[in-house]
Amino acid sequence: MTVSETERAALRRALDAARRGPRGVNPQVGAVILSPAGDVIAEGWHRGAGTPHAEVDALSQLQPGQARGATAVVTLEPCNHTGRTGPCSQALIDAGVARVVYALSDPNPRAAGGAERLRTAGVDVDGPAEIGGAEQDAAASLLRDWVAVQRLHRPYVTVKWAQSLDGRAAAADGTSKWITGAEARADVGRRRAQADAILVGTGTVLADDPALTARDADGELLPDQPVPVVVGTRDVPADAQVRRHPHPLLQLGGGLPAVLEDLRERGIQRVFVEGGPTLATAFLREGLADEVLVYIAPKLIGRGADGHDYNVVGDIGVRTMSDVRPLRTTSVERLGDDLLIVAEAQAATEKTEENH
Amino acid sequence: MTVSETERAALRRALDAARRGPRGVNPQVGAVILSPAGDVIAEGWHRGAGTPHAEVDALSQLQPGQARGATAVVTLEPCNHTGRTGPCSQALIDAGVARVVYALSDPNPRAAGGAERLRTAGVDVDGPAEIGGAEQDAAASLLRDWVAVQRLHRPYVTVKWAQSLDGRAAAADGTSKWITGAEARADVGRRRAQADAILVGTGTVLADDPALTARDADGELLPDQPVPVVVGTRDVPADAQVRRHPHPLLQLGGGLPAVLEDLRERGIQRVFVEGGPTLATAFLREGLADEVLVYIAPKLIGRGADGHDYNVVGDIGVRTMSDVRPLRTTSVERLGDDLLIVAEAQAATEKTEENH
Ligand SMILES: NC(=O)c1ccc[n+]([C@@H]2O[C@H](COP(=O)([O-])OP(=O)(O)OC[C@H]3O[C@@H](n4cnc5c(N)ncnc54)[C@H](OP(=O)(O)O)[C@@H]3O)[C@@H](O)[C@H]2O)c1
Ligand SMILES: NC(=O)c1ccc[n+]([C@@H]2O[C@H](COP(=O)([O-])OP(=O)(O)OC[C@H]3O[C@@H](n4cnc5c(N)ncnc54)[C@H](OP(=O)(O)O)[C@@H]3O)[C@@H](O)[C@H]2O)c1
Repeated sequence: MTVSETERAALRRALDAARRGPRGVNPQVGAVILSPAGDVIAEGWHRGAGTPHAEVDALSQLQPGQARGATAVVTLEPCNHTGRTGPCSQALIDAGVARVVYALSDPNPRAAGGAERLRTAGVDVDGPAEIGGAEQDAAASLLRDWVAVQRLHRPYVTVKWAQSLDGRAAAADGTSKWITGAEARADVGRRRAQADAILVGTGTVLADDPALTARDADGELLPDQPVPVVVGTRDVPADAQVRRHPHPLLQLGGGLPAVLEDLRERGIQRVFVEGGPTLATAFLREGLADEVLVYIAPKLIGRGADGHDYNVVGDIGVRTMSDVRPLRTTSVERLGDDLLIVAEAQAATEKTEENH
Repeated sequence: MTVSETERAALRRALDAARRGPRGVNPQVGAVILSPAGDVIAEGWHRGAGTPHAEVDALSQLQPGQARGATAVVTLEPCNHTGRTGPCSQALIDAGVARVVYALSDPNPRAAGGAERLRTAGVDVDGPAEIGGAEQDAAASLLRDWVAVQRLHRPYVTVKWAQSLDGRAAAADGTSKWITGAEARADVGRRRAQADAILVGTGTVLADDPALTARDADGELLPDQPVPVVVGTRDVPADAQVRRHPHPLLQLGGGLPAVLEDLRERGIQRVFVEGGPTLATAFLREGLADEVLVYIAPKLIGRGADGHDYNVVGDIGVRTMSDVRPLRTTSVERLGDDLLIVAEAQAATEKTEENH
């Protein structure tokens, strides 16, 4: 069967419902129930861990028997795992739903298999391949970061730095204001709003006293503010700007895997690492950087007279050319005089393929 | 008066004539003489230092009096300085030429003023501003490098290197094959053909044994081959590939200003410095790099475990952010997976302006 215009409209409505739920450990999911005549008879969404899933939330608004022959339009594949209440796919079967349209397959092996269970029970099912188009894109985009967390078992990590063309983060005397221009710095401000948390090392807090707020081009605070996180054991001064951030400061330590696990448990899906070089190098060395954002200024700094230099990247374990960490460039953009290169780390398996 | 179509056609012919002359210390110049009716009655070009200028070469083909009332179309402003034979502008006046059209002003203060002398003598003169269009562009492009030499009093210097995103020229063990991919390396091969000489340090000759030939995408030798130049005092091995280059090898020393002066006297207008890092850094430090070509591979190398690293740029005298060497990006291009950034050094005066 093909997905009808009525069902697409219901999916758009389900996406709006999904967005009312919180961004966190659980996915944002919405569901709309259509009568056999195509009228919306119920709508539901997921309000976070420990609350009913979207389909169950929607079904709960109907009288017994009212869902018989109905179509359920859901933004994520109905789950197949028995949590508090049993699988949603079974709930839909039990309610007598005749057709299910879902926009995204469940990436979680524990939860997947719902579509299969529905089909086996004789329900007519259409998934992402049948939907396609803008609605499928919107559903994928809404859950992009949550899907990444399921795949990685940790938040998606972007490491950002600013450098001179020759790869320096600062001049020999440690001065680094400003390597890049106003447009590049405004771009950083905007991108902060897309992350759930911003990480910096204690070294950067003590040296630069950053505010870690997401701001628009006029310097105004944006509505979405990431959680500020300082990594390291040294004390953050009582008058540090980061303590006046709209969100309370989080200070974490104990190694990066532990830091990321802690953040994941707090529902953080997307992390923006803003340095300094020690922290950024640690993420790269431990293979915990999924993406790098490199702002390159058309300037040369070179090495200091005493041999001292501030390279943006320290020891990441590369000894010889065949160890080199390959990236895949996803975009190159000019921002005023500067250049922004966005690149993804290539997963270990891809690296292996490349070397053979 | 405006420049007629007949005069434009004559200028294109004069440019073809100019190209027959040698590229070297003197400019390539061509001249065409048109009768008052607009017919080509003579054509001349400059064959290099010590030979007649193009206008005089053309006039020499005419009978006495034949140039009376004629129009001379010349690719470069007729000179005003008394060399072996007296200024060309005077020769045109003496021959009774009524109108002169020239495509490019003479940048050489010693030679300039010819147009003025002609006007004072009552000759009708049109210059670059009146010509414009494709013909003016072609004339400017033909003499671009020669004009740069007049302005700089040395060849125009491009310094090229290949680096990882984080500014490394090699891994900790010194391996550097290959940082960039095949498309970037082919681009280097093509750009070599645009230079009159390629420079490398003895360090690179001994480490990499480069051929320093300009080749097309299929690896075939291009018709224009730059002169290979090795800078440094160490011996170039008898079996070095660079000794099998179509042009005999030149080995120079005594400091970069002396090297460039020597090359200028040989008629070299454009120099391509291909490294290694020691030589490239010296050009940058001494303010002798007019342009940089940076091929950036989407890879990270970092520092070696022992703290050893191969940065592309060493000590160029920058101590603090306000000393930083600003560049002006002229192009950013993707070549396969790599990126080519072309940037011009900003002249000292521009730098000063910027810092105030
Ligand atoms: N160009 C740029 O993009 C950029 C960006 C930011 C900063 N900077 C410059 O960088 C300089 C500061 O450099 P930095 O390297 O000292 O700063 P940093 O990376 O912010 O801080 C280093 C500290 O972070 C903690 N840390 C790092 N890796 C860790 C790990 N794997 N596990 C747990 N904790 C870890 C440690 O804190 P404890 O020692 O407290 O335990 C470490 O001393 C400043 O000059 C600043 O201006 C430049
Ligand atoms: N990534 C890249 O784009 C790239 C390009 C080329 C080479 N490389 C790598 O770079 C390494 C070689 O590095 P390198 O720095 O030793 O090579 P280099 O710069 O080619 O050679 C250094 C030598 O050049 C001479 N020299 C340098 N500056 C001079 C000056 N101002 N005046 C006169 N002579 C000068 C000196 O020669 P004498 O000591 O003989 O007097 C000096 O020892 C190799 O591993 C090679 O693979 C990388």
